[in-house]
Amino acid sequence: MINEFALIERFFKPLERLHADIVYGIGDDAACVKVPAGYDLLISTDTLVADVHFLKDWDAYDIAYKAVVVNLSDIAAMAAKPAWVTLALTLPELNIEWLERFTQGLAAALKQFDLALIGGDTTRGPLSLSLTIHGLAPQNQARRRSGACPGDKIYLSGELGAAAMAVNFLEDKSLSSNAKEILIQKLKHPYPRLDFAELLRTYATAVIDISDGFSADLNHICEASRVGALLNLKDVPIHLLVSHYQPKHALALALNGGDDYELCFTIPAQQEENFLALAKEASLKCYLVGSIEAEPGLRFVDDKGVLQCLKPEGYKHF
Amino acid sequence: MINEFALIERFFKPLERLHADIVYGIGDDAACVKVPAGYDLLISTDTLVADVHFLKDWDAYDIAYKAVVVNLSDIAAMAAKPAWVTLALTLPELNIEWLERFTQGLAAALKQFDLALIGGDTTRGPLSLSLTIHGLAPQNQARRRSGACPGDKIYLSGELGAAAMAVNFLEDKSLSSNAKEILIQKLKHPYPRLDFAELLRTYATAVIDISDGFSADLNHICEASRVGALLNLKDVPIHLLVSHYQPKHALALALNGGDDYELCFTIPAQQEENFLALAKEASLKCYLVGSIEAEPGLRFVDDKGVLQCLKPEGYKHF
Repeated sequence: MINEFALIERFFKPLERLHADIVYGIGDDAACVKVPAGYDLLISTDTLVADVHFLKDWDAYDIAYKAVVVNLSDIAAMAAKPAWVTLALTLPELNIEWLERFTQGLAAALKQFDLALIGGDTTRGPLSLSLTIHGLAPQNQARRRSGACPGDKIYLSGELGAAAMAVNFLEDKSLSSNAKEILIQKLKHPYPRLDFAELLRTYATAVIDISDGFSADLNHICEASRVGALLNLKDVPIHLLVSHYQPKHALALALNGGDDYELCFTIPAQQEENFLALAKEASLKCYLVGSIEAEPGLRFVDDKGVLQCLKPEGYKHF
Repeated sequence: MINEFALIERFFKPLERLHADIVYGIGDDAACVKVPAGYDLLISTDTLVADVHFLKDWDAYDIAYKAVVVNLSDIAAMAAKPAWVTLALTLPELNIEWLERFTQGLAAALKQFDLALIGGDTTRGPLSLSLTIHGLAPQNQARRRSGACPGDKIYLSGELGAAAMAVNFLEDKSLSSNAKEILIQKLKHPYPRLDFAELLRTYATAVIDISDGFSADLNHICEASRVGALLNLKDVPIHLLVSHYQPKHALALALNGGDDYELCFTIPAQQEENFLALAKEASLKCYLVGSIEAEPGLRFVDDKGVLQCLKPEGYKHF
C-alpha cells in the first residue's frame, strides 16, 4: 500500500518547477520563497468540492486543470502575475489511475501558465481540493474591486454564458457533438485572463472575474466602490452557441450564469481611447457594456425606453 | 437566508487584525501583503477533515482553534514567525450557532499568536477546513529537516503521548475528571512551539514538529538529512498522566502517537552548551533523547545492552 509520503514523492514532487524565487518547495514543513523587492504579494484561496463545483465522475485531469485555472483567475482579477500555488487534496481512497490523470491535468495547467506548485497536504476524506495561489504585482499596482468611479466605462474581456449552458442545457438534442465539445471545454477548461494584467494595471479602476455570474460580480464592484451601474443589455457579449441554441435563456445565462472566468473591469472615460488603442495593439478584444453611475444598484433601459432595476443574481453557495 | 457574502461580512470580516504589512485582507479576489526586505516567506497548508482529524461533534470552538495551532506548528517547525493565514471552510449547512462558536475559537487562536486572517473561501460540502499559513524568517535562516549531521544531539521540546492517550484511552474508568480534562486539552488545544523559533534559528541544524508521531517524524529528519539516529528510549519525555495511567502503552504512545506538536530538533555537539545556557535563560525546557549517526535508520539499545532497530511508526492517512 502506497503511503502519503510515497504518494507525494511519486505524484507531486515531479511537478516541481524550478523558479529562481523558490528557495525550496515540496517536502518540508513549509515551502520557502522570495518576494522580489518592490512587489506586493497577492494571496487567494479557492476550494472545489465534488458534486458542487465539479462532478465526481469528471476525468481527474479536468478536475485538476479547472482547480488551477479558477485560482489563476483570481490573480488575473487583481491584474497580477501568478507565482506559486499550494494544493490541499482530500481523497476518499488512493486510486493510482485517478491520481495519474489528476497529476497530468495539474502538470498541464501549471506548465501552461508558468505556475509553480510549492507544497500542499494530502488527506483522506470526501473528494475536494483547496488551492492557495500567490501572485505578484509591482507595489500598489494590483487592482481591486473598490476603485470604480461615476463616469467610468464598464468592459468585459469576453463572451459569457457558455459554461452555464454546459451545466444546464447540455442534454439539448439539437446540439451537434462539436458544439457540445466546445461548451464542455468552456466549463472544464476556462481560460484565466492573465493576458489583460499589464493593461489593467495601467488603466483599470476596478477589476473582478466572472465566477458567480456577471450581474452578481458587477454588483460586487459597485458595492465595494459605493457606486451603481447602467448596463446596455444588448451589448453584453453572449457566446454564439448560447444565443443560437438557447435564444430564450441566452441573456439570463450571460447575466447570471457564472463560471465564465472572463474579467469585468472599469476604465475612466478620459483613458478609454488610449486603453482601446493598446488593447487592439495587443490583440485583446473587449466589450463595452455600460457605465458607472453615482446612484447605487444595477440598471438597464428596457425595449420601451424605461429605466429598470437589474437584480444581481448568481451562484449561491448556501 | 444568510448568503456567503453576508456570512463573510458577519463572521469573518470582524476577525481582521490590523498589521502594518497587510495592504488589504478579506473582501477582494485576493489579499495583498508586503514581505519585509531581507525576509524569506514560508508557506504551509494543512487540511482538517471531520471524523479524520477531529470529530464532527467537537465544539466548533475547538475545531477552529486546533486548525489554527496545527498550522502554526508548521511555522514553528521552520523556526519562523507566523504572519498571515487564509481559511478555506467547507460546511454541510449554515448553522449560525456553530459558526459563532467556530469564529470565537478562531479569534482566540489568532489573537493568542498574533496571526492575521487575510482571506479564504466558504463552500458547501462535507465539513472540512484547509488553512494556508504564511510565516517570515530572516533570509536563509528558516530551518529545514535536511540539515542534521552525524554527531548532532537530538532534542525534544516537551513531553509526548498525551494527545494519543486522549484519542485511545479516554474511556479508562480510573481517570479522574481532572486528568481527563488535561488530556482533552492536549488533544484539542495543542501549543505550537513558536517560543523556540529564535533559538532554533541560531543553533538547530534540523527541525520538525511531532504531528505524525515522534519516531515517524524523526525518521523524516533522518531521511531528509541522509543520516540515522541512536535514541535513548529511557530519556524520551512522556507526559506524566500517560506514564501513570498507561504504563504498558506509555512508550508506544510517546514514540508513535502523534498530534503532540512538540518540536524535535538537532543541535551540533560543540554548540550544545551555548544552546542549553540560552534555553535556560529563556526558561525553555528541553530534553536530550539521542544523537545523529551516519548510518541510516533509527536505533536504540535494549535492556540487555543489545542494539535494536526502531521501526518508525506514525499516523497513516491512507
